[in-house]
Amino acid sequence: MPALRFPERIARLQTTLRRRRLSALLVTQPGNRRYLSGYSALDHDIQESSGVLLVPARGTPYLLTDSRFYLQAEKEARGFTVQLYPHGLIALLRQQLPQQGIRHLAFESHYMLHSTAARLQKTVLGLGLELHPVTEVVERLRVVKSEDEIEALRASVRLNEQVFQKVYPAVKPGMTELEVALALETTMRRLGARGPAFETIVAFGPNAARPHAVPTDRTLAPGEMVLIDMGLVLNGYCSDMTRTFVAGRPEQTFVDRLRLVRRAQLAGMNAIRAGVTCRAVDMAARAIIRDAGYGKFFGHALGHGVGLDVHEHPHLSSGSRKQLRSGMVVTVEPGIYLPDWGGIRLENMVVVRDHGCELLNSDLTSLDL
Amino acid sequence: MPALRFPERIARLQTTLRRRRLSALLVTQPGNRRYLSGYSALDHDIQESSGVLLVPARGTPYLLTDSRFYLQAEKEARGFTVQLYPHGLIALLRQQLPQQGIRHLAFESHYMLHSTAARLQKTVLGLGLELHPVTEVVERLRVVKSEDEIEALRASVRLNEQVFQKVYPAVKPGMTELEVALALETTMRRLGARGPAFETIVAFGPNAARPHAVPTDRTLAPGEMVLIDMGLVLNGYCSDMTRTFVAGRPEQTFVDRLRLVRRAQLAGMNAIRAGVTCRAVDMAARAIIRDAGYGKFFGHALGHGVGLDVHEHPHLSSGSRKQLRSGMVVTVEPGIYLPDWGGIRLENMVVVRDHGCELLNSDLTSLDL
Repeated sequence: MPALRFPERIARLQTTLRRRRLSALLVTQPGNRRYLSGYSALDHDIQESSGVLLVPARGTPYLLTDSRFYLQAEKEARGFTVQLYPHGLIALLRQQLPQQGIRHLAFESHYMLHSTAARLQKTVLGLGLELHPVTEVVERLRVVKSEDEIEALRASVRLNEQVFQKVYPAVKPGMTELEVALALETTMRRLGARGPAFETIVAFGPNAARPHAVPTDRTLAPGEMVLIDMGLVLNGYCSDMTRTFVAGRPEQTFVDRLRLVRRAQLAGMNAIRAGVTCRAVDMAARAIIRDAGYGKFFGHALGHGVGLDVHEHPHLSSGSRKQLRSGMVVTVEPGIYLPDWGGIRLENMVVVRDHGCELLNSDLTSLDL
Repeated sequence: MPALRFPERIARLQTTLRRRRLSALLVTQPGNRRYLSGYSALDHDIQESSGVLLVPARGTPYLLTDSRFYLQAEKEARGFTVQLYPHGLIALLRQQLPQQGIRHLAFESHYMLHSTAARLQKTVLGLGLELHPVTEVVERLRVVKSEDEIEALRASVRLNEQVFQKVYPAVKPGMTELEVALALETTMRRLGARGPAFETIVAFGPNAARPHAVPTDRTLAPGEMVLIDMGLVLNGYCSDMTRTFVAGRPEQTFVDRLRLVRRAQLAGMNAIRAGVTCRAVDMAARAIIRDAGYGKFFGHALGHGVGLDVHEHPHLSSGSRKQLRSGMVVTVEPGIYLPDWGGIRLENMVVVRDHGCELLNSDLTSLDL
């Protein structure tokens, strides 16, 4: 990918900061950190960060981290000055903020613990500076993907489909949900993915009635439906795909309901183009399901953005009046869930374009029974 | 395990709340939530919680969650009233807090995002109530383990050793760090673990000089050292073990340094008993390494508590004057890390007892060369 993209992204963020009269932004959210710097270290969790960016409204940005990550930070975050915090982030900031003349420090309110923010507030007040909680500043820059990001997402989708295709033929009665999930996640890593983008969902029969089913030791019975919702991370970018199928000959009810969900998916995709509201896309798919009498069994939104994080803006929901823009990448995933019977969800990823959408998936398993 | 433990734990927490004049505690930290309720759902991350406890200073505690988790919550959290928040946690609390006469609401400051705390603060102020950030309230109850928890930790350690023993003989020159890590994590899940307790560390040769090395595609060369730091989650409880070995015949330098680290580990274990300070234990091990001239190559603390989380209190560090108590479970993991050469760390888990410590590990691989 072109090396220019990071300076460009930093420049766009700096323009935002100056417009909002903020002297600097502390970037703690891992996807935002990677987007701006290329630094790819993972956080064990929010309490064990592998580093933080300090991006001033003007001039060179800093990557603050500890000695474990120094070499990786130096290598990956080229336009950044890497600084270590042997005594923790707050201690380093106490020194850095006055030196850099930062008066109005912003931080990511949706990715900092209350206890950390409280200590930061105390430090900042002690220095006579001002602290500003912000949200969605970097996320707003990330919502429209560049062509190289779309290429990375396409590669992630492609690998995800390869993994599915390796495991799918082996799904047979007698296997457990956990075994199938393990086979999928192991294959992801064997084929070069960083790992799953989220906990793989494998649900058999009535278990598929729960949209966020967790794999159990339930054994697949002949003729039962199999719902697989899987995604992986490749070069930082996520994929997300759902297929529902029957290993063997499906009953007619399954076929009818699958066709309904597929028609809803196609209606959603057909509604997508730049300028259309998220709500309109959700409604286009939802109308198909509602008109068939299954409206109350489709209880979630139609889709979500995907990028460095698996759940990003925009939300394709009936409550969102935001307009789609060319270059956004979203899932289209209608589903119906009937207690005691099971559930069917079909999910693909598409790129929003000026006059329609571009499908990133090519797998057709069970889509057009 | 006895069903009595949850009411007992709730009662102890309620005593603490009344003593501190708090009307209720909102429990968001997943380990604390499981400890108090038995509810075992996992959080995707801090932004996607599978539920929150509201424990009043008197009376029945609540488990607040969404419809996806209702069945599991009802089944697992027996002494709790399960309530759903179709419009989110804050909306439910706006209704619940006045109804329950809660005036002083505490929340876990170290496990709530700043943005969530800000919305909660606004709601609570609007109701004329008071919000109190607290830390370590439930963690303090968890620090001493009951005998049934120790049994669960023992089972977790045992399974972790079985996984190590299945993979260890297969570690041969030509394999990559990533392949070994994948084999370990796959075996964990095949043998019934929930998954790894942390990202498995596999480091070959000079890579072992980084205490938190992330597995790479580096290939094992004949005679190179292999450092494996691995743990798993079984029935909620974590294990954590490190072994360093050579596949083949080790050089004398490796043997000498391994013996040094092993002597430090034994010195640390010998210093452990109820009443001794964490600092004294750390220093007992550190002295061995320092006296051999390797002091500056042992840059981390000697150990940490393990339980429902893999990093808990107490910290066996030179800065902690806290006293060990009988029933605490800690790692003992001295290490030396020499840039360009490699690193050796040996880690076992022990239970603190009145007159010494009880070793939970039985694996002896490479410990006594």
